[in-house]
Amino acid sequence: MSDLEEGKTLALDFDKIRKVAENCPDVIPVALQNSDTGEVILIAYTNKKAFELSLEKGRVILWSTSRNELWEKGKTSGETFNLLEAYVNCEQNSLVYKVRPRRGGICHTKNRNGDPRNCYYRRIDFGSRELENINP
Amino acid sequence: MSDLEEGKTLALDFDKIRKVAENCPDVIPVALQNSDTGEVILIAYTNKKAFELSLEKGRVILWSTSRNELWEKGKTSGETFNLLEAYVNCEQNSLVYKVRPRRGGICHTKNRNGDPRNCYYRRIDFGSRELENINP
Repeated sequence: MSDLEEGKTLALDFDKIRKVAENCPDVIPVALQNSDTGEVILIAYTNKKAFELSLEKGRVILWSTSRNELWEKGKTSGETFNLLEAYVNCEQNSLVYKVRPRRGGICHTKNRNGDPRNCYYRRIDFGSRELENINP
Repeated sequence: MSDLEEGKTLALDFDKIRKVAENCPDVIPVALQNSDTGEVILIAYTNKKAFELSLEKGRVILWSTSRNELWEKGKTSGETFNLLEAYVNCEQNSLVYKVRPRRGGICHTKNRNGDPRNCYYRRIDFGSRELENINP
């Protein structure tokens, strides 16, 4: 178990955008929201190719900024996410996708039942800055 | 009225991350969600300084990637947003803030009643790629 992903220690990686831009400068952020529960389940990145493909297929296809390649969510696992609606902001440099999971969560981490979580499973305590896992 | 912000034409600015990283390499994206309605109202950026200050004050303070300075939301307009909860993702490189507006929307654009909108007021038509303004 990695402390970064499972622990209580807040250790924000403020280098992320620099690394993203080095690898793939032509992406914008997209927030994925479960259309049924309203939960924000992931903030990821997309580029023109992934965006076009996602709208065409009606399912979540992103751009992996670590692997610098198309990220067809659930392609191997079957845990696909239908793309129901897409919204763009004023400046047209970020997106919100309303999505419906075929099953389960979107994160690569799993809770104690072995089920994939959604990504924002840890709440930051404002006083202590400790992380509380709300889906342990 | 700017077509980019008010029009029906989809013109995604895929240069955003490159520009952000050039200006301020030490930021991460944060999705702001209205804690009462569940609506995602903004995707913005924060750095260590803005993050710490926001948690201390219990209100939304971001980092403006265009002006490269603290962005104290509502400092002049009074349209502040209380920060109720903050969540971090697995890799600790993005945040979700649950917020409550003191009044109104968060976007600098306004609807026909003169009220500030939230940022995702345009839905992308999957077929035509035209934008539909849901808060004109």
